[in-house]
Amino acid sequence: MAHLSFTGHDLDRDDHTRADPERLAAMRARGDARLLVLDGLLPQLDEHGLVISDLSGIGDDTELVYLGLRGGAPLFVQVPPEGDMRQAVTLRETMLALMRLDPAELAMFGGARSVADWHARHRFCARCGGHTQIAKGGWQRNCTSCEGQHFPRVDPVAIMLVENEGDLLMGRGKGWPDRAYSALAGFIEPGESIEEGVVREVLEEVGVKVRDVSYIASQPWPFPSQLMIGCHGFTDNRELTIDYTEIEDARWFTRAEVAEAMENGRHAESFIPPLPTAIASYMLTWWLEQD
Amino acid sequence: MAHLSFTGHDLDRDDHTRADPERLAAMRARGDARLLVLDGLLPQLDEHGLVISDLSGIGDDTELVYLGLRGGAPLFVQVPPEGDMRQAVTLRETMLALMRLDPAELAMFGGARSVADWHARHRFCARCGGHTQIAKGGWQRNCTSCEGQHFPRVDPVAIMLVENEGDLLMGRGKGWPDRAYSALAGFIEPGESIEEGVVREVLEEVGVKVRDVSYIASQPWPFPSQLMIGCHGFTDNRELTIDYTEIEDARWFTRAEVAEAMENGRHAESFIPPLPTAIASYMLTWWLEQD
Repeated sequence: MAHLSFTGHDLDRDDHTRADPERLAAMRARGDARLLVLDGLLPQLDEHGLVISDLSGIGDDTELVYLGLRGGAPLFVQVPPEGDMRQAVTLRETMLALMRLDPAELAMFGGARSVADWHARHRFCARCGGHTQIAKGGWQRNCTSCEGQHFPRVDPVAIMLVENEGDLLMGRGKGWPDRAYSALAGFIEPGESIEEGVVREVLEEVGVKVRDVSYIASQPWPFPSQLMIGCHGFTDNRELTIDYTEIEDARWFTRAEVAEAMENGRHAESFIPPLPTAIASYMLTWWLEQD
Repeated sequence: MAHLSFTGHDLDRDDHTRADPERLAAMRARGDARLLVLDGLLPQLDEHGLVISDLSGIGDDTELVYLGLRGGAPLFVQVPPEGDMRQAVTLRETMLALMRLDPAELAMFGGARSVADWHARHRFCARCGGHTQIAKGGWQRNCTSCEGQHFPRVDPVAIMLVENEGDLLMGRGKGWPDRAYSALAGFIEPGESIEEGVVREVLEEVGVKVRDVSYIASQPWPFPSQLMIGCHGFTDNRELTIDYTEIEDARWFTRAEVAEAMENGRHAESFIPPLPTAIASYMLTWWLEQD
């Protein structure tokens, strides 16, 4: 079975330390404390993988997130000067760098990127506009002016394989590489379940009604901090009414076309399949393995 | 089968109108436009259910969220003066009022409460501290000082039934009613899948390792805006090491005890089961129906 990318980190998140300022300070002062070095929010790699340094040169008031214990040693990441809301599809260099990481490193980078980026974009209190400061080892920010407490965001996204008579519905977003198709997806909104999100998104984007939604798998997607929730469903309606303000195209693919694309990757004839780091790639592999 | 509370709203969310200011203004001006009337963030009920009024008396610059079309008529909710971060367990009156709603109304109230509360707590830009204003019919807020765009939060929470030799592990939070027990739960963090969140939370709270996590069902929980993701897993370890900073107690319950509690509700002898509006109630019903 394929691997779910951005899962399988080898950190002990050691949440008991987060809430204890003394214990946290002691972790930071330890000789074996380490820093995951990012270039802004990009991964920085050497011949061994992600660059990890000691904490020398890090001032006491530098905002660090405590990621947890790795091989028993405390690991931190620094809050960068600027956040980043660009779409992952525009981060070609990042995506290529990610392919060089082993699965546990990729997962560690993903979580670190999400939380560091969140800090950089939440230096002010949404409630009162005051300054916020890092708290709980980087798993919270508190307002310095009001009682506001703020927590890292994780945005659940429903992503779905929709099937009709053995064919699969996929679409392509604006600005995607030529001939690239993937599973339809969208943010789950307040007031709906995962399954209701699947049905609404597909109806909005291509005008068909989905039934019998089931869950496949989940993985994080750190651009900036999505929880991708992979689902499968059926539709009895093949006729698409595409909302071109949301997507660039959508169409049906045969099982043979999906198999060919997954076999040949970016050299495929039928369509360019999603990157292996995307949960859509895992879902297509899963689907091809079903009866 | 039990119903998943807060699901099954009967709104067409009509997202195409959100992004179109003219269409949105026309919706607001329609004679059949209606307002879901909240008392702050509490539901307001009359003999028919939720109180719905016309828009007379609502000024043009009042912040309204466009919830969508209900029976063809546009429905709005007003952003209240104050948000609310109290825990649902402290909102006894709200919980009792909710029990009087039919399922579609409950779901409509839940979504409206979450998004209205989010607006009230996000009048400032987390990026720069500037004022934000409502956009896209209430499904976005934009900063008036920088390029910041902000979207309603939905916080995914993993909630899990953990099983060992046919018994079920449940816990109770601080401040819960006497003898009340429910499934363990916790927020999914950046950098982990649903399944990894389940394993981490159980390990943190009671010190046992969970394997073979599977998905059961999901529902929203609008206090303030969680997506509850119900899972099941097994553990080979019955010995609990409880983190009393996080929970007040946890213990194993036999199938007979769970059945008795679900049968007798708050008059049960074994323990007080979760409210029917909680996904934990659905999950326990589901579990009792398994072989």
